[in-house]
Amino acid sequence: MSTISFEAPRGMRDFYPEDMVWRNRIFDAWRDAAEHFGFQNYDACVVESLELLQRKSGEEVSEQIYAFEDKSGRKLALRPEMTPTLARMVAAKQKRLPFPIKWYTMAQCFRYERMTRGRKREHDQWNMDIIGSQEVLCEAEILGAAVYAMRAMGMPDEAWRIHVSSRALLGELLAVSGIAEAQHPAVFIALDKRGKISDEEIAALLCSEGLDDGAIEKTFRLLNVTSLEEATALAGENSPAIQNLKALFTIAESMGYAHLLMFDIAVIRGLSYYTGIVFEAFDAQRKFRAIFGGGRYDSLLALVGGQPTPAVGMGFGDVVVGEVLREILGEDAPIAREGYCIGYMTAAERSAAVCLATRLRTEKNRVDLSLVAQKPKHFFGKAGNSNARFAIFLGPDDVASGKVQVKDLQTRESQEINL
Amino acid sequence: MSTISFEAPRGMRDFYPEDMVWRNRIFDAWRDAAEHFGFQNYDACVVESLELLQRKSGEEVSEQIYAFEDKSGRKLALRPEMTPTLARMVAAKQKRLPFPIKWYTMAQCFRYERMTRGRKREHDQWNMDIIGSQEVLCEAEILGAAVYAMRAMGMPDEAWRIHVSSRALLGELLAVSGIAEAQHPAVFIALDKRGKISDEEIAALLCSEGLDDGAIEKTFRLLNVTSLEEATALAGENSPAIQNLKALFTIAESMGYAHLLMFDIAVIRGLSYYTGIVFEAFDAQRKFRAIFGGGRYDSLLALVGGQPTPAVGMGFGDVVVGEVLREILGEDAPIAREGYCIGYMTAAERSAAVCLATRLRTEKNRVDLSLVAQKPKHFFGKAGNSNARFAIFLGPDDVASGKVQVKDLQTRESQEINL
Repeated sequence: MSTISFEAPRGMRDFYPEDMVWRNRIFDAWRDAAEHFGFQNYDACVVESLELLQRKSGEEVSEQIYAFEDKSGRKLALRPEMTPTLARMVAAKQKRLPFPIKWYTMAQCFRYERMTRGRKREHDQWNMDIIGSQEVLCEAEILGAAVYAMRAMGMPDEAWRIHVSSRALLGELLAVSGIAEAQHPAVFIALDKRGKISDEEIAALLCSEGLDDGAIEKTFRLLNVTSLEEATALAGENSPAIQNLKALFTIAESMGYAHLLMFDIAVIRGLSYYTGIVFEAFDAQRKFRAIFGGGRYDSLLALVGGQPTPAVGMGFGDVVVGEVLREILGEDAPIAREGYCIGYMTAAERSAAVCLATRLRTEKNRVDLSLVAQKPKHFFGKAGNSNARFAIFLGPDDVASGKVQVKDLQTRESQEINL
Repeated sequence: MSTISFEAPRGMRDFYPEDMVWRNRIFDAWRDAAEHFGFQNYDACVVESLELLQRKSGEEVSEQIYAFEDKSGRKLALRPEMTPTLARMVAAKQKRLPFPIKWYTMAQCFRYERMTRGRKREHDQWNMDIIGSQEVLCEAEILGAAVYAMRAMGMPDEAWRIHVSSRALLGELLAVSGIAEAQHPAVFIALDKRGKISDEEIAALLCSEGLDDGAIEKTFRLLNVTSLEEATALAGENSPAIQNLKALFTIAESMGYAHLLMFDIAVIRGLSYYTGIVFEAFDAQRKFRAIFGGGRYDSLLALVGGQPTPAVGMGFGDVVVGEVLREILGEDAPIAREGYCIGYMTAAERSAAVCLATRLRTEKNRVDLSLVAQKPKHFFGKAGNSNARFAIFLGPDDVASGKVQVKDLQTRESQEINL
């Protein structure tokens, strides 16, 4: 029979056990952080209706959707992000849910796009959303949980920063500059492309949206605002957007992560539905793409046909953070040794080994029981390369005496136990 | 803007937080069992190449594959099961992997089929596989981990049984009955349909495979064998298949789950690649479909073009076990209360509440901090309905005195702590 490719489909990832060590480090930190901050877990199928995804998604994403028809001709797709699904699920039970709700999920998402470094066609994304409250404490809680997760993964505080801005503030500043509100959405989309395309191309985009040269110049000048003080001078002390940002920085102080926040007017976020504070986290060197991002999107539910409801959300993919962690901690970041390996010399000792394994497992220990009889040298070689903390090898003498040595693979010490 | 459907696509499931309590109970038990038995975690994308899936899958599954083309015309599909992916991943690194390997995964799988009770178009499946050993200890370890998981979910031993048979044994018995080996695969497929179609239809299937009336009668007579002793009398004491089954029962005795095993010659398994021991678990009442199933499949790797390698595997879906658990434990099976709820009377107490929440979270507690100021009655009502163990409400007097009451929602007792 002819062989077929052993590769995963293009852009899709395989995770061998050695890869899972990294992935589980990330997933465990996500889950742990969300649970510690009192978020409730939800999930949905990776397949969604194409109509829902097209309704909600930004223009760029819509072209990148993996769409297909099922055998009844239903138009389906692999979701590119979780937010449309969240909006649908919340809208379906909007009258019964105990708002404000704090929900999280870890979801595989797909985008068909050209393959470049760090860009796969699928990734896993941690989403946290708080729906039903306008309090800036929502933003603070979501950022607090993200900080908790980063620390749980072993990321040092000095290695990264959360860049914070506000769509509402930028809107106020554009208004002060005399740019009509109707043009703001197009300006946001154009400015978000900064760094990806040249400033000349952005200027051309703004021009095609009807901004004259003076308005374009004023727009670029706004991007030179480098501090919240400067922004305050332009927008005024009474600006709701400024007061909101300052309140966030104050709560972050109480929560112990204000030193991780920096005001950055260049943070826009690509999707059109953000309405208030927006944020993106980057490694301090800015070598990698954004680690996570999100913000307030008070108009999302109305977009899918639900009741207008204030909301804040965050998306945190597994690819970029994995690259940053490997860069900072090294490929061989240590793994905690845990549990037992049990081996045996001949088939005659196997039954005693099975009984010992069963006893240790009943006591809630992790036990890797050898499937085949083997020489001690071979067994201890494999045990040393495993993640086990303790190794036990049963020879005929051990079974006869009813006692066996437990070797601690970390300290190299041994201790005798009864069989 | 017109509204769109808030329903998940047909056959796909949404998981609200109340559903996740059940799902996480199942997933946590799976993960815990696999880790305790020393299995290593692996994973792969839900999208696979159609060619791989068609190559490996049985006839029935192949018709039910969700297939589609990506924008480059690649033929892709949503996997109906994890085994082809496992075979591909192992074949890709066959020269480097430290056989025998013990791997597990929890994977979403898709089948396009008519909707009936307990049949969705997607489900999640726990897979454990041991590849590279012919020892029956492999089967015993996999069943031992499955038993561990069932107990961890709260399933009482008396509520379920593992039905065990052997393809090799049935092959020996068919040979003894004079049925040519070339016809065995077709006989297995026909017999596996028993209970789904009538015995007359099965007889017609066997007839179309070239079995004469005598052979068909002998085949049905084999299905009346009800004990391992009876099978031994037919196959002989020296039958390798009988010795293998007896060895499994002996190890199961040492591992403490022999009382859960029962010999059942009717267990065949639908897929064509099984070669030895096969098993399926059912609720004791036989009200539901199989909870999990699997067996030895020594020829799988060769099927995808890898080197022939002995293997045993198990698939354990989340749908049937969820139905059985709800039936046996009740819809409202108790959940452990954990962590804190914190509320506050007015915005003036919010800062103290944030500081207390941060302190408790730093001490590794789960804390649900209220997002809005509220009256104590409202707060305690919500706290009582949550999964939190402790509730703390901050009023102006508490902040002034620097002391607050921690209410244990389980014991109804209160204790004072310093702010």
